[in-house]
Amino acid sequence: MGVVVQKFGGSSVASVALMKQCAQRVLAARRGGHRVVVVVSAMGDTTDDLIGLAGQTGASPDRRELDQLLATGEQASTALMAMVLHAEGIPALSLTGWQAGISTDGAHSKATITGVDSTRLSAELELGKVPVVAGFQGRTAGDEITTLGRGGSDTTAVALAASLAGRCDIYKDVEGVYTADPRLVPGARRRERVTYDEMLEAASLGSQVLHPRAVELGKKFGVPIRVLHSHIDGLGTLIVADDPSMESRVVSSVVLKRGVGRIVLRELPNAPGVQARVFEPIAAVNVCVDDIIQEEAAAPGRVNLTFTVDRKDLESVRPAVERLCAELGGAAVRVDTGLCTVSAVGAGMRSGVGVASTMFRALAQSGLVIENVTTSEIRVSCVLREEAGEYALRAVHEAFGLGHPDSELRTARMMLGTSTSGV
Amino acid sequence: MGVVVQKFGGSSVASVALMKQCAQRVLAARRGGHRVVVVVSAMGDTTDDLIGLAGQTGASPDRRELDQLLATGEQASTALMAMVLHAEGIPALSLTGWQAGISTDGAHSKATITGVDSTRLSAELELGKVPVVAGFQGRTAGDEITTLGRGGSDTTAVALAASLAGRCDIYKDVEGVYTADPRLVPGARRRERVTYDEMLEAASLGSQVLHPRAVELGKKFGVPIRVLHSHIDGLGTLIVADDPSMESRVVSSVVLKRGVGRIVLRELPNAPGVQARVFEPIAAVNVCVDDIIQEEAAAPGRVNLTFTVDRKDLESVRPAVERLCAELGGAAVRVDTGLCTVSAVGAGMRSGVGVASTMFRALAQSGLVIENVTTSEIRVSCVLREEAGEYALRAVHEAFGLGHPDSELRTARMMLGTSTSGV
Repeated sequence: MGVVVQKFGGSSVASVALMKQCAQRVLAARRGGHRVVVVVSAMGDTTDDLIGLAGQTGASPDRRELDQLLATGEQASTALMAMVLHAEGIPALSLTGWQAGISTDGAHSKATITGVDSTRLSAELELGKVPVVAGFQGRTAGDEITTLGRGGSDTTAVALAASLAGRCDIYKDVEGVYTADPRLVPGARRRERVTYDEMLEAASLGSQVLHPRAVELGKKFGVPIRVLHSHIDGLGTLIVADDPSMESRVVSSVVLKRGVGRIVLRELPNAPGVQARVFEPIAAVNVCVDDIIQEEAAAPGRVNLTFTVDRKDLESVRPAVERLCAELGGAAVRVDTGLCTVSAVGAGMRSGVGVASTMFRALAQSGLVIENVTTSEIRVSCVLREEAGEYALRAVHEAFGLGHPDSELRTARMMLGTSTSGV
Repeated sequence: MGVVVQKFGGSSVASVALMKQCAQRVLAARRGGHRVVVVVSAMGDTTDDLIGLAGQTGASPDRRELDQLLATGEQASTALMAMVLHAEGIPALSLTGWQAGISTDGAHSKATITGVDSTRLSAELELGKVPVVAGFQGRTAGDEITTLGRGGSDTTAVALAASLAGRCDIYKDVEGVYTADPRLVPGARRRERVTYDEMLEAASLGSQVLHPRAVELGKKFGVPIRVLHSHIDGLGTLIVADDPSMESRVVSSVVLKRGVGRIVLRELPNAPGVQARVFEPIAAVNVCVDDIIQEEAAAPGRVNLTFTVDRKDLESVRPAVERLCAELGGAAVRVDTGLCTVSAVGAGMRSGVGVASTMFRALAQSGLVIENVTTSEIRVSCVLREEAGEYALRAVHEAFGLGHPDSELRTARMMLGTSTSGV
């Protein structure tokens, strides 16, 4: 039987008692004939506690030292998890990132995995052991300890699964990927399968189920990833490449992203290079731009350039944008807060039709004003006032029939015979 | 200028605030022109806390896993100490045991350092940096993390000093090595110098200033070791090989060891191999025997064999001893508790004379009964009832004039003209 990498996050291993529950997952997989590798995060709030200690040292801590410090969190939880597995009669051994052969570049606090030498992992598996590997960390060619930044432990798990040609089970405090956040949409349903691309779109839209880095890696190496609840039995959601059985599913989920800020540069002269000059300084301060919309302005040869960022980033980009607008001869900069985006995502959108119009109709029937619209190949997003977000989310979820078991069928029927464009 | 390795124990680095005080020691040494390597233990109670967590996992934890767990304590404190040094403007970097090139054998939880590859340390020093090295840990040839057991961080510090041909400053919560424990003997004085051998005798007699492993290593490689207070300025005590200036110092310290248990095997037939048969099972259960005394018994061809162990070990050795006594045809086993030893230690004893008689006279004048006597080349020990221990310690301390600045001279005078043996 194949290799399965089981990854347990910080809240799943926050105490020894919770680790004992995780151990049952390992036992079950071994009983099912699998060879198991476990990846764990640091226990509960350990990482935040360590960052707090670092903050007491004075100046903002050196990234190399922060990595040396934070890596201890995962190392400690691997050793404890190995002990818990021993107590269950499972031959296990903990491995740090470097012991597990995880190589990274030297970008401390946000390193990228450059390779996995799975010699030792394979040898331990061959001996019937369960390696418990520290997530979120690796080693550079120069023997420096690095951490992988946000989503690092999920990324470790997928990378190990890729190197061992196995699958990856990610245990979370949710039962899988839903058609919408179940805390906001009572009728939201767990999806049995979603595609890597759908997960990537959902993640960039604010769904926190799985970090896009891990999904990207899974997509690149074709690693089947399953998202499961740590302590509630269930099938979870399987993340895979496109699948013929999914063709009729036009929209698979709707996502609400709050805290959206918007900047509009009005009546910019549309000369070559204008767009690059606007966005270069934003990239330079490491702010992520979500959507960009450019439209013709009333004045001839002029355009309005609109883009959205996290509201918390507005103030760090505003000065550069205002200076540029003046330099380029634009009319004005407008900054809006209090916005959100509601997005419909679905791999089937590539071949389906009428998704945008269905979404617009649902919002119109709810009496909501759409401030902006952007689309990708598998997504339609509408910018709305933030207070309308949850209501809009539920309306769109309902419009695509996502709360009903036969939703794929109904969505397909609804689209039948329409002739609008793909989105 | 040379290299100095500064070692700070767990209580000296128990908080970031205390680390900032340690940083002043580093600053001062650098201002004095030294190249500095720092070795730290885990912060305060970290190790005990981790052991507590391990205890929750169920069965008694695997030693390999305990090492993986405990090594995180020192790693975390090195990173924090490096950050504290940065805040003081000192270019520092933390290094785990393996990053610092410390190789050990595979005896988890009590590994022995087999070598230090100081390539990286030397390179960092060459760059003007202060390496902050995790004490108490190393790496095996098979990439396993090990810990060194009791006294491990002191041993790391001395090993690094040896490999860098430097000296070693050990910062403690005492101001140096005293003629007696100052909490018990009000007139106890700090010694400016003691020899490795004196420290080894004192350590085996219960002085907890420095672990004998570290002293042994210092002696082997001739590393000058200084014991200093972490936060109180002073010269501390320098530990060195024999030194001509010390010849007149016959007794340099007196040590009280409490909690001594004694076992007497009465009237053993003195056949070849009897002693080996008695002590082999004791060594097998890892109990350390302090002193062994054999004397003729009243019955012809028979001997009484007496030995002392820590009182807490009495019950684990008693059954084997009783069985052996019966097998060997001895008369009886007597077990005594409530004992202590008072010892006088001094490198000058090798050439001085009359030490034992001075000690016996002091105890006699105090009206104390001496239960046993043992000696080594540089030590005289008397077993007494435990309740007499502190009183005897003060009497012997006074008899050798150790509380007075001119004690060496007086002791020398006192010995003049006597003709008894070396001890």
